[in-house]
Amino acid sequence: MALRVLVAPSGFKESLEAEQVAECIEEGVLRVVPDAEISKAPMVDGGEGFTKTLVNATGGTLHEVTVTGPVGEPVESYFGILGGAEGTPRVAVLEMAAAAGLRLVPRDLRDPSGTTTYGVGELIRAALDAGADCILVGCGDSGTTDGGAGMAQALGVRLLDRAGNELDRGGAELARLDSVDLSGRDPRLDSVPIEVACNWHNVLCGPRGVARVFGPQKGATPEAVEKLDAALENYAAVIREQVGVDARQMPGGGASGGLGTGLQALVGATLHPRYEIVSRYLEIESLLEKADLVFTAEGGIDFQTPRGKIPVEIARRAKRYGLPVVAIVGTVGKDAQINHDHGIDAYVSILQAPVTLDQAIEQACDLVTVCAEDVMRLVMLGRELAPASPSGFGEELRPEGAPAV
Amino acid sequence: MALRVLVAPSGFKESLEAEQVAECIEEGVLRVVPDAEISKAPMVDGGEGFTKTLVNATGGTLHEVTVTGPVGEPVESYFGILGGAEGTPRVAVLEMAAAAGLRLVPRDLRDPSGTTTYGVGELIRAALDAGADCILVGCGDSGTTDGGAGMAQALGVRLLDRAGNELDRGGAELARLDSVDLSGRDPRLDSVPIEVACNWHNVLCGPRGVARVFGPQKGATPEAVEKLDAALENYAAVIREQVGVDARQMPGGGASGGLGTGLQALVGATLHPRYEIVSRYLEIESLLEKADLVFTAEGGIDFQTPRGKIPVEIARRAKRYGLPVVAIVGTVGKDAQINHDHGIDAYVSILQAPVTLDQAIEQACDLVTVCAEDVMRLVMLGRELAPASPSGFGEELRPEGAPAV
Repeated sequence: MALRVLVAPSGFKESLEAEQVAECIEEGVLRVVPDAEISKAPMVDGGEGFTKTLVNATGGTLHEVTVTGPVGEPVESYFGILGGAEGTPRVAVLEMAAAAGLRLVPRDLRDPSGTTTYGVGELIRAALDAGADCILVGCGDSGTTDGGAGMAQALGVRLLDRAGNELDRGGAELARLDSVDLSGRDPRLDSVPIEVACNWHNVLCGPRGVARVFGPQKGATPEAVEKLDAALENYAAVIREQVGVDARQMPGGGASGGLGTGLQALVGATLHPRYEIVSRYLEIESLLEKADLVFTAEGGIDFQTPRGKIPVEIARRAKRYGLPVVAIVGTVGKDAQINHDHGIDAYVSILQAPVTLDQAIEQACDLVTVCAEDVMRLVMLGRELAPASPSGFGEELRPEGAPAV
Repeated sequence: MALRVLVAPSGFKESLEAEQVAECIEEGVLRVVPDAEISKAPMVDGGEGFTKTLVNATGGTLHEVTVTGPVGEPVESYFGILGGAEGTPRVAVLEMAAAAGLRLVPRDLRDPSGTTTYGVGELIRAALDAGADCILVGCGDSGTTDGGAGMAQALGVRLLDRAGNELDRGGAELARLDSVDLSGRDPRLDSVPIEVACNWHNVLCGPRGVARVFGPQKGATPEAVEKLDAALENYAAVIREQVGVDARQMPGGGASGGLGTGLQALVGATLHPRYEIVSRYLEIESLLEKADLVFTAEGGIDFQTPRGKIPVEIARRAKRYGLPVVAIVGTVGKDAQINHDHGIDAYVSILQAPVTLDQAIEQACDLVTVCAEDVMRLVMLGRELAPASPSGFGEELRPEGAPAV
């Protein structure tokens, strides 16, 4: 009987995408167990790689579109159509980072007061044009803090100042928002559901709001952060009054510089915790049903990992099927052993010698592969151990006598 | 049935002694398998720790003696008497490093032309005085290059120059050696065998001789190295002519600055590869007979490990009993995977995050413990895997079907 292994890793930040990590682990496992049956479910978040991973995993197609970039210049972008059986709904997938990601903002123009999600709206329009029955939008890696205002405008929503003039692009403009006019919104949005994969912990306003938490890393000065936060407060106030949505502390409303808020309040989308969407479309449950052993991975593991990070999300699901779970990690951090209580049976660092973080990142691909090989060697060594032990009992009694993991 | 684990590690250079490594691994294993039956065989070499490890392992006793240190000052030293059943031979154990080690030479006096092994001879005499039936001498970590001349003099051997005057202490004096007089040698040496644990690759003379290979690290200038080498050549020539022993390239003859030569040629000792002695007195074979799983360890593992390093020495012996072997290592070096062909089923680095070598050394104890725990988690996870897999076959068919490690 071939060993069935599910490989469901996260990407390693600034180093390897989830798909690469999955391929490295597969390679390492096969070195030790050449006939292992391996399923891969690269656990992207909603950011970079979301579209391609879901397209690849489902055998879908990628479609190129030119859209307005975060600083107003045209950028080459894309959306995907998931693969699926004839007659099933046509699901489009897109990631905001492909139209308004931080990577698309030139370093000398990094001012989240002025960048726009307009291109994200254009991507949604392109998906509608392509006949999508449903649209998935991934949030993450954004270079914007406009509350999704640009995205909504691109889909026909009018955002007006007191004089009735359309707001210009950028989050700072939202300070002048006086009224919202949904009458010109693309009518197809009424019948095509949009599902958003976002970080559930990101909120729009207040001390943990997007301007304060993410503004500085997107290039905002302390002064700009305060102005942006005030602008978003005004945005939330207008939305509550005129659309009836209380967006200030809405889970996911702060995702991608507040894009979550615009998607839900102005475009009628539904927000979801990101891994819920990814797990559903990668069909994690049916992969778990058919697995004997689960590998997951993440750049680092520590006491925060049980708070919604991939390894524990995967481990929790795996434990419903009684499956052993191994996490391959870049670094083991503070109080990582807490993860043993959350379904991760063992975690192993990929490091093999004293190195700097940069060196580890550079060698990550090899290190992950070798680590998976080493883990598999230990697992198979243990698998051989049971029958080899001279217990004096028949094999059928072994499970009871074997020490618990 | 409790899992029986043999822990046979080397020390980690400049960090942990073999006994400490063994204790850390034991602790890590017990965290996962609290009822494991653990045997420890700390694989010391002949250097620092040799005496105490063998004394501890056999339940013997330690005896303090003041002897002449390597630069002529008195030093507090010790030898041991191994534990053993009533009526068995009384075996004394001592390490040369406790009387003439590099650590006993003050940094500003590090000149191997002048340091002496006289105190080693005094330790041997003390062991004879204590009624030893057999004496083990460990070589390693020496601060001397006197060919064991001082040791022999302390036991009554006379080393004379052309004028018939006794040579002064230090290797450089051997250039003046003209004759050897064994007539005054302690007569007890004729009936008490001395067994020497030494590095089999160390030779006395020539391009790989002790003066050239170890002289510089003991503080010799390039000029002093040449003089020392010439002195040792003269020493070898006199010994060949007058004692009939060809010591120039004798395996182990260069151990501890040539102490191996003096012990064999002038005192009648027998040289052995160091791990042969250690394995015999730690009773490795009988421990292997009773083990299910073997842990070994070393500061580093690489392509050189199969050339006589502890992990592979242990693995080779373990494989005669068909036992799985895991090596816990500080760092994984070049072409380490070659060790898989030499009986090491898996090796794992103790590193958990990007660190400097100094940091790794400082945290070594914790890192080894946690690494052993992680390894054991993976092994036990694998052990559970076999019976848990829904194969459709009876348990008794599993071993054949299971992939080979």
